[in-house]
Amino acid sequence: MAKELPSRSEDYSLWYNELVKKADLAEHSDVRGCMIIKPYGYSIWEKMQQALDKMFKETGHVNAYFPLFVPKSYLAREAAHVEGFAKECAVVTHYRLKNAEDGSGVIVDPDAKLEEELIVRPTSETLIWNTYKKWIQSYRDLPILVNQWANVVRWEMRTRLFLRTAEFLWQEGHTAHATSDEAVRETLQMLNVYAEFAEKYMAMPVYRGKKSDGEKFPGAIDTYCIEAMMQDGKALQAGTSHFLGQNFARAFDVQFSGKDGKLDYVWGTSWGVSTRLIGALILAHSDDDGLVLPPALAPVHVVIVPIFKNEEELSAITARVDRLSADLRKQGYTVKFDNRDTHKPGFKFAEHEMKGVPVRLAIGPRDLENGTIEAARRDTKEKVVLKMEDAATAITKLLDEIQANIYNKALNFRNEKTTRVDTYDEMIRVLEEKGGFVAAHWDGTTETENLIKEETKATIRCIPLDVEEEEGKCVYSGKPSHRRVLFARAY
Amino acid sequence: MAKELPSRSEDYSLWYNELVKKADLAEHSDVRGCMIIKPYGYSIWEKMQQALDKMFKETGHVNAYFPLFVPKSYLAREAAHVEGFAKECAVVTHYRLKNAEDGSGVIVDPDAKLEEELIVRPTSETLIWNTYKKWIQSYRDLPILVNQWANVVRWEMRTRLFLRTAEFLWQEGHTAHATSDEAVRETLQMLNVYAEFAEKYMAMPVYRGKKSDGEKFPGAIDTYCIEAMMQDGKALQAGTSHFLGQNFARAFDVQFSGKDGKLDYVWGTSWGVSTRLIGALILAHSDDDGLVLPPALAPVHVVIVPIFKNEEELSAITARVDRLSADLRKQGYTVKFDNRDTHKPGFKFAEHEMKGVPVRLAIGPRDLENGTIEAARRDTKEKVVLKMEDAATAITKLLDEIQANIYNKALNFRNEKTTRVDTYDEMIRVLEEKGGFVAAHWDGTTETENLIKEETKATIRCIPLDVEEEEGKCVYSGKPSHRRVLFARAY
Repeated sequence: MAKELPSRSEDYSLWYNELVKKADLAEHSDVRGCMIIKPYGYSIWEKMQQALDKMFKETGHVNAYFPLFVPKSYLAREAAHVEGFAKECAVVTHYRLKNAEDGSGVIVDPDAKLEEELIVRPTSETLIWNTYKKWIQSYRDLPILVNQWANVVRWEMRTRLFLRTAEFLWQEGHTAHATSDEAVRETLQMLNVYAEFAEKYMAMPVYRGKKSDGEKFPGAIDTYCIEAMMQDGKALQAGTSHFLGQNFARAFDVQFSGKDGKLDYVWGTSWGVSTRLIGALILAHSDDDGLVLPPALAPVHVVIVPIFKNEEELSAITARVDRLSADLRKQGYTVKFDNRDTHKPGFKFAEHEMKGVPVRLAIGPRDLENGTIEAARRDTKEKVVLKMEDAATAITKLLDEIQANIYNKALNFRNEKTTRVDTYDEMIRVLEEKGGFVAAHWDGTTETENLIKEETKATIRCIPLDVEEEEGKCVYSGKPSHRRVLFARAY
Repeated sequence: MAKELPSRSEDYSLWYNELVKKADLAEHSDVRGCMIIKPYGYSIWEKMQQALDKMFKETGHVNAYFPLFVPKSYLAREAAHVEGFAKECAVVTHYRLKNAEDGSGVIVDPDAKLEEELIVRPTSETLIWNTYKKWIQSYRDLPILVNQWANVVRWEMRTRLFLRTAEFLWQEGHTAHATSDEAVRETLQMLNVYAEFAEKYMAMPVYRGKKSDGEKFPGAIDTYCIEAMMQDGKALQAGTSHFLGQNFARAFDVQFSGKDGKLDYVWGTSWGVSTRLIGALILAHSDDDGLVLPPALAPVHVVIVPIFKNEEELSAITARVDRLSADLRKQGYTVKFDNRDTHKPGFKFAEHEMKGVPVRLAIGPRDLENGTIEAARRDTKEKVVLKMEDAATAITKLLDEIQANIYNKALNFRNEKTTRVDTYDEMIRVLEEKGGFVAAHWDGTTETENLIKEETKATIRCIPLDVEEEEGKCVYSGKPSHRRVLFARAY
């Protein structure tokens, strides 16, 4: 059929691009680097938003909305920040168009030049800390625990749907605290929220860790991240949480009077995940037949395909599955009854496989006689015949199993793709032949990090939080090291 | 106390501005015309979004996301549209900044000029119809029922928080149909969804009607709207639904082959409501003590203020109200227990009044003895003493009553402020002395409409859908008219 994908082994990159298109998730727009998120792709984002928003609110955060535009001078207030963000961005210079006098069309009105250019936000620290200056006077005004769901723009030259686009959707949390300790706790709390979301909802195991100085957020003291492993052995950064120290408070002069009446600068954090997560979800689990979606994020959990030759058979089937659909819906599952008479069952099967519906049910005249229904799970392709009277219970159990299986499969793969190496030769060999994460000793210098990056294309994904200290020698320089870090080639 | 507002009768406009600030809803940002929606204001928007999104989905719509930027040439494709929208807008001309060579800071890189300027979307018809061209080939691809939640920018010179801002948040529905009839039905269906939302959730009665040609959306065949009456006698357009005919399909060459194989242009609609609704909600119901929120959109439904002198009294009260809070929460209400020891009850009462919490409960030592709790409703300020054992039921009933009362009060006011006039003198007098809607005969010409507007500052708000035809004479020209239309001064 027309929907067939290239295989992953053949061309992983092409497989991804085609899958995004054929599963109706997104497409390129005519505006360079900007994507159109199609309804099916957007419904996955809505599921992600709902789950994350609930977790943010349960940890005491509230949502707000700050302007799209950042005055150019704001970006320059924090030194590292301007280096990191002021480069590739969309610049608004004028506020009016007019009809060309020669009738040739619409032109930018030269009289409507802005006094100061506005940047379409690449991230909102500067605008928000400029606002916090007005909101914070005393320790009583702290903490501020604000999140925003928004679009941001970074003028990327090489773009890929979901993974790297000029405009993308994300959430950005921006919190303000009276003490360094509290801000560090917040930073780690949100890192853990992201890790829990990735593992519980996305069924995607992650390493939690700290970025090296070379890889941290421009303007942060420490950047923490979650790193996931994709099926091609490349790592993907799935979320970051930054401890900003007092950097932005100093840049925007945000001070508060403490209980003792003394003035001090406010401590900050920021943290974000984006529509990039949809790319991660695809790359982590999907197969040569299409998407594989964990039930926790699937827009449709169960699709029922009736096998019928005529209207009479269809109505008998419809009557039979009504109760089952109702039972499943009562438990919060989305059930689709695909009774289109314009397509054959085989076509529908392939389409729902492409779209990653976790459970497909098929029911025909023989099932009506036998009181059965056939269930096919998307993840393993296994089929079982269920008795109608137990079907709702069995399918609920099956959906839980699928969620667990997708996670365990990814966890085994990730563990198998994590290799401890003790020499640079071994590191090069593993990166070339096996891919994945390489756990190696590193001397802690940006110089060594850069040399390894140049020579192997692998970067330090993180200094993992969950490993014990261990004495060793840097694989590159031979200098002493106290802990292994994770290297990988990455998206 | 510091929070006091100017009264509505004193200065309605100042009252509104102060209320928006003092109820912590929004504030101006440093970026001209762009507002910051603060957490409490944003939580009202979230409630609105949830209710509307559910109604959109129940009527078969799905969400998607289209790019922020519109190429300049797209705007020019539909003649009326470019006239209406290409004027005041944010124009992106460059995609890079760089450090000034003289070290003076960051400047726009002149080498990074875009070949074609990009407009920050003022609305998305052009981008979306350019996309629909790729999505639609045959009648089988129709209808397309897509909505998007997004930010848009229109470079307004005179801005007011929520009511008119350069950037605002909204939803824009864009549908495509095989027939004119179906598109008209969709247009009216969404108008009715908006009317239902306004009346059921916002407790704000609206007139549904059609715009005159002079007031319709640039690019539409017909624009329908809902119009509400504010407490100062000015009308406010609260939502619009446009029948686009084949205008955008022609402009972007979107044709489909019908069942008979013939090619035809696709029929379209678009419809939207924005954060302006928050302004309407405030202007419609609030009073001199602050916000009055209908329970259906209140972020907090019930606040409990304990009256205590010491820790012991507070714990006794806390123990007593735990069950009540749990019962109310079980019914889906948000309950806040305001046990701060930094503020006195009187301060808390005023604060919760300012924020429009529909029901305030107060409980002190005497109530503990008597097994009672005092309930004060925000809308009428009435207080009743409830028995603790009936309190949950009584409060549920009270919240329903408040929702109904706010609506009925606004309905009576709106009806009282709707005046039938038969002469132009009467019209002028009513507009000057009483304000509100004036139902008058009009000859149907844009010329008369403009003259009346110039002379009275009143515009035709709509040609209402719900009134019967009635023969009469235009109040201005004396020419024959078949139906009264609604004039008003408006926001």
